[in-house]
Amino acid sequence: MSGILYGVGLGPGAADLLTLRAARLIENAKVIAYPALVGGSSFARSIAEDLIPAGVQEIVMEVPMTTERKPAQDAYDKGAAEIAAALDAGENVVCLCEGDPFFYGSFMYLYARLSPKFDVQIVPGVTSITACAAAAGRPLVARNERLTVLPGPLPEAELRARIEGAESVAIMKVGRHLAKIRGVIADLGFEAQATYIERASLDAQVVLPLSEAPESAPYFSMILLTKGADPWL
Amino acid sequence: MSGILYGVGLGPGAADLLTLRAARLIENAKVIAYPALVGGSSFARSIAEDLIPAGVQEIVMEVPMTTERKPAQDAYDKGAAEIAAALDAGENVVCLCEGDPFFYGSFMYLYARLSPKFDVQIVPGVTSITACAAAAGRPLVARNERLTVLPGPLPEAELRARIEGAESVAIMKVGRHLAKIRGVIADLGFEAQATYIERASLDAQVVLPLSEAPESAPYFSMILLTKGADPWL
Repeated sequence: MSGILYGVGLGPGAADLLTLRAARLIENAKVIAYPALVGGSSFARSIAEDLIPAGVQEIVMEVPMTTERKPAQDAYDKGAAEIAAALDAGENVVCLCEGDPFFYGSFMYLYARLSPKFDVQIVPGVTSITACAAAAGRPLVARNERLTVLPGPLPEAELRARIEGAESVAIMKVGRHLAKIRGVIADLGFEAQATYIERASLDAQVVLPLSEAPESAPYFSMILLTKGADPWL
Repeated sequence: MSGILYGVGLGPGAADLLTLRAARLIENAKVIAYPALVGGSSFARSIAEDLIPAGVQEIVMEVPMTTERKPAQDAYDKGAAEIAAALDAGENVVCLCEGDPFFYGSFMYLYARLSPKFDVQIVPGVTSITACAAAAGRPLVARNERLTVLPGPLPEAELRARIEGAESVAIMKVGRHLAKIRGVIADLGFEAQATYIERASLDAQVVLPLSEAPESAPYFSMILLTKGADPWL
């Protein structure tokens, strides 16, 4: 009997924003897997750190930070092969995923490689979007409002068109695209309704009006724009 | 000193998809509050049931199921007054919220009423969107893909325009709007890429291709449409 692969969402970063299901799976794991930067530093592992049992087998996937596909594909090929070996040996494998595995998560590359052959179970996690809304004290969407989620790396013209036609907007992966995004939002006249959030739920969390955001933003940053949610007073 | 109001996301329904923070707050609560149907049945309370301490004070907000605003506003006015009385007496109040408090959550009506005067802390929860993606085994968005979240009650023409211009789409609150939404998706030629999910994460969970969805859907149902996420093989 092959083992089961669990893709476990860890939430936005605070150790107590894991779900009870995620915590139980990690505490009982014999094999865990997670992505890391080249060199081994892993945000996913750091979120779950206090729950990881001593003596667990760790499959570390060192994923190069590049927009080229091939080096990252190679890293997931190698990781998938190591995970498959453990599953074939009958071990369950708990893969640690920042946020939610299926929401901009690299776990889906493992899912594509392994789900045709193995039983894969997904444990959903708290996404950075609602964590940022909680941090900012800004309701995202109510009643029949629409929410548009946009990655910051999109071209300026597309960001402009999408933001213009949207109601609530969450812009992910802001990082080095901050100046471009801020320019678009200011041009459209929405700057006063936009909030900048970095490292939501962590000790280093920052929440600022977009107009006061720093010149350079970390990868884990977001802009929330709500054009006028109706609080139903 | 006034107490703190906690708006606590409970996730999609499974008792073990609460976060550790939510569980700790509920286990230690002296006063809880939650919405219920008229008559007292509460999905939120049922999710948290096993964690609610004996002897806790319960503030039940009976919210009429209607699209008229006034009766619901009155229910939140009354609930907010009861919660304010507990906070003024120095008690913390834990408000139980299905899903996430700021993602189509009725908690925002309490937030609007009480946050000007009291300290309100939001505990984000797993949303139905990622719970449905997990149930369906369908990655939602990767890399620079866009996600559009649409409520099912939107007019047909607007649904059509929004779905046509979108990449990944999550349609919430399907319920009695199922036939309309299915018609739009079929007309646009996307039916084969659409999945119907009801009661994600609960024992009664249903996952079907949209073409096989039942004629009538419960309120807690969703359609996920992914036009072609690239699995990066």
